[in-house]
Amino acid sequence: MSVQQSSPLIFITNDDGISSKGIASLVEVAKSFAEVVIIAPDKPQSGMGHAITVNSILRLNECDFFPGLTAFSCSGTPVDCVKLGIYEVMHRKPDLIISGINHGENSSTNVLYSGTMSAAVEGAMENIPSIGFSLADYHADADFSEAQDIASKIISIALENRFPDHVCLNVNVPKKSDIPVKGIRVCKQAHAFWEDRFEKRFDQFGKPYYWLTGEFKNEENTADSDLYALQNGFASVVPIQFDMTAYQHLEYFKKYNS
Amino acid sequence: MSVQQSSPLIFITNDDGISSKGIASLVEVAKSFAEVVIIAPDKPQSGMGHAITVNSILRLNECDFFPGLTAFSCSGTPVDCVKLGIYEVMHRKPDLIISGINHGENSSTNVLYSGTMSAAVEGAMENIPSIGFSLADYHADADFSEAQDIASKIISIALENRFPDHVCLNVNVPKKSDIPVKGIRVCKQAHAFWEDRFEKRFDQFGKPYYWLTGEFKNEENTADSDLYALQNGFASVVPIQFDMTAYQHLEYFKKYNS
Repeated sequence: MSVQQSSPLIFITNDDGISSKGIASLVEVAKSFAEVVIIAPDKPQSGMGHAITVNSILRLNECDFFPGLTAFSCSGTPVDCVKLGIYEVMHRKPDLIISGINHGENSSTNVLYSGTMSAAVEGAMENIPSIGFSLADYHADADFSEAQDIASKIISIALENRFPDHVCLNVNVPKKSDIPVKGIRVCKQAHAFWEDRFEKRFDQFGKPYYWLTGEFKNEENTADSDLYALQNGFASVVPIQFDMTAYQHLEYFKKYNS
Repeated sequence: MSVQQSSPLIFITNDDGISSKGIASLVEVAKSFAEVVIIAPDKPQSGMGHAITVNSILRLNECDFFPGLTAFSCSGTPVDCVKLGIYEVMHRKPDLIISGINHGENSSTNVLYSGTMSAAVEGAMENIPSIGFSLADYHADADFSEAQDIASKIISIALENRFPDHVCLNVNVPKKSDIPVKGIRVCKQAHAFWEDRFEKRFDQFGKPYYWLTGEFKNEENTADSDLYALQNGFASVVPIQFDMTAYQHLEYFKKYNS
């Protein structure tokens, strides 16, 4: 008796919303590898970090953007999409969760603000191999072709090799230019921050309002960081875990014991 | 010539909203130590994680809940409050950021979902000593008196001792009972997760909607974890950092290099 091997199952989400070009380009890649289920926010959810919807209800609506595939738009955040996918739609854990491809870079500490990456971190909490993909191009008409090639390579390796427990990957791809991406570099998260600024404007009633803006500053440009890889034309891959304990400072804080 | 030492400045925020009992109890403690500025969300923002407002505008409204103190309600998330506080209201970095006291526990991996803790993590990214306080009691009429005592002790030590760079503290206090809290334990983040469940209900038009619910499961109950401390009657203090790189797996993932 021959045992028929069933096709793997890939769950796809993002934070730019279900109608974005980035998720369509990721679905295109993933469906050549596996059965695919898509649940993504019904509106842009950039910068939502690890937000979940606890004070309100969630809606799921079937979506026909992806002919022949199971797809839903969701009123919640990227992390809500992952939770609903596992517990209400698939009723099982997929073989892989992929999130993106994000319109914009999520390197360095942006992993904390990024809905794209928080969906992958939620996958890691569920102990499902999970990968967030981002392209360093914010334009709606960004060219995702190189990012698709990188995603294809990485998904292929991820499906063939076991992931360590409770880890996900943060993948960033440089903006497409005349020089092709040089390769893939496994790196650590760079120590870099936003220098925030607010634009203060006034509405038609003379009341002030604020837009968050700012500049991303690279404080530490060591050759083993994701920002360095990106600035030098490589796609970066950072393995991410969610134990935020500052182990190196446990001893120092013992003075708080009583 | 005697040099007059100016009073320290403490910035206070939370995620339950500016009208919650928890923030009022924290303000009461903090104002005995320092000059105080309060900016907190104008509505509950529980579970908002490290969300920031990038697709919409932010409003700040002066608030007279705290007579004699500078206070604003904000239309955004806890992290927005921290950013607005530093860059638009105080125009300088405070000596300490405190967040809470949260109505409900934020131990273990809840640090990722918690708006209370994300405000503290944002403070750490700005390299400001920052502390999130949470009480393991979800009731609106929770008794914050013991949590206030713990907060007072911890704020006092924090103002007298330099914080290591880019670190914040996650402080949780057990629900008040007949047995007084036994003391304070510096711990690591427990390896525990939500076992999610959705309640599916139907609206008046017969359309389904979902409420996120579930149970928190402690997978690893080692004596050095925050959950263990809380379950044994101690307040827990976990030093938190934001480099999420899984250093122990960098070598394993080198197979992705190309």
